[in-house]
Amino acid sequence: MSVKLEGNILVTGSNRGLGLELVKQLAEKTRQEAHIYACCRDPEGTRAEALRKLTAQYPGKITMIKLDMLDEDSILTAVQAVSKQVGAVGLNLLINNAAINTPASPAPLSATRKKDMMEVYETNVVGPFLLAKMCLPLLQKAAERHSPEKDMGDKMSCRRSAIINVSTLISSIEKCPETFPVAQMYPYRTSKAALNMLTRCQAEDFKIYNILVTAIHPGWVRTEMGGEEAPLTTQDSVDGMLGVMSSLCNKDSGMLLDWEGNSIPW
Amino acid sequence: MSVKLEGNILVTGSNRGLGLELVKQLAEKTRQEAHIYACCRDPEGTRAEALRKLTAQYPGKITMIKLDMLDEDSILTAVQAVSKQVGAVGLNLLINNAAINTPASPAPLSATRKKDMMEVYETNVVGPFLLAKMCLPLLQKAAERHSPEKDMGDKMSCRRSAIINVSTLISSIEKCPETFPVAQMYPYRTSKAALNMLTRCQAEDFKIYNILVTAIHPGWVRTEMGGEEAPLTTQDSVDGMLGVMSSLCNKDSGMLLDWEGNSIPW
Repeated sequence: MSVKLEGNILVTGSNRGLGLELVKQLAEKTRQEAHIYACCRDPEGTRAEALRKLTAQYPGKITMIKLDMLDEDSILTAVQAVSKQVGAVGLNLLINNAAINTPASPAPLSATRKKDMMEVYETNVVGPFLLAKMCLPLLQKAAERHSPEKDMGDKMSCRRSAIINVSTLISSIEKCPETFPVAQMYPYRTSKAALNMLTRCQAEDFKIYNILVTAIHPGWVRTEMGGEEAPLTTQDSVDGMLGVMSSLCNKDSGMLLDWEGNSIPW
Repeated sequence: MSVKLEGNILVTGSNRGLGLELVKQLAEKTRQEAHIYACCRDPEGTRAEALRKLTAQYPGKITMIKLDMLDEDSILTAVQAVSKQVGAVGLNLLINNAAINTPASPAPLSATRKKDMMEVYETNVVGPFLLAKMCLPLLQKAAERHSPEKDMGDKMSCRRSAIINVSTLISSIEKCPETFPVAQMYPYRTSKAALNMLTRCQAEDFKIYNILVTAIHPGWVRTEMGGEEAPLTTQDSVDGMLGVMSSLCNKDSGMLLDWEGNSIPW
């Protein structure tokens, strides 16, 4: 799909899986002026080797940023570093991709502890909540600079200023009876339903600034989290998601869409 | 409304507001054999004076139980105390009513901290999750003893074995654009959307045991949390909710209903 994204783009959880592929395809498919802030917990650790290699392949295009979603100070430090580099241009697109899923799938009730419930919520909801809150001034800057004429009359777009929260089909309360038998995953499900609510709240809250906020389900993808039997490759999922992000406009803010652009019920 | 509830009934957050009124009307309106376990953080504190008075008015009908939803050991101790008293009869109805809402309404984004997000989730979602998990053997006992012929062919009812999670209209992701301008309340909204997901997961998980699980919106009620301008009295809200609980059957498990029995979209 053609990718119409530009400006400064931040991706969390970018050292592996979907996050790494997002950075890779954004580096490949955006114009030279676009810049990618690739965040992960430990940019210097062994788990970030593939991201370091990718960064070296695109000189001046990708900046690695240390970001631990569980640590409020780490989020603040990361946002300050991005703020300094983007300056008056601001941040055009924040992609909240980092997420965890414990205990191991299928994660039945009996195996699920308080610690799982708390940590998954902290990472998957409170982290994105704080990051968006701290990035808000940067997103506002980008929204103010952008001339909406580019976007055929629509005020909002991922080119102008947007937050994409990576959600999941499993977040759908409506579809729970279909998906529950396969994987119980109480902590993950409750966190992602909360993330959908966060998305819709942010969409309402930020529409006066012309910041678009949409949740996207990447499909069931062959990653460390998705497992080997998943039908979709990370390449195809990210290709689809970037196509969807490129096409988002006013009517999509506050919605949950899949990687092909189809709406998913709450 | 007529109340058709019986057996052993546990209510959390029962020292004030809706919880206190639930205990009061359950004590008044159920037959003599019914027994109410009225849980609150500090049964001996000044905040539980009204509940102590109510307990004294109905000798042998109400047992006060110390329960702090933030403390896993406290939940376990409370469930052990209930288990000992109910014996082979089990627990028929668990009403998860205890909840908090910080920061103070309207709770805009700027006033909301990480601590609010975490504590509200811990109280409103993780507490009910753990309590239900620990009560499951007691609910199973009650479900096994009950003869469903009483319930006109339906396998599930609040008389047999059920969990009621007290939710809110504000939990509806669908209705967020209508309710958000009045009160932002990010921590409360995200926690209650997660509680709805928990409700639907439990409904799927526990249907093999014939345990019904439903979320109920009590209406906007004149309580400490609801404020003085709320249109509904606690009396009318609880009267409505107990009527709804009395009528719940198979088709209502995994749903979100209001105090008049109307379905609310996720």
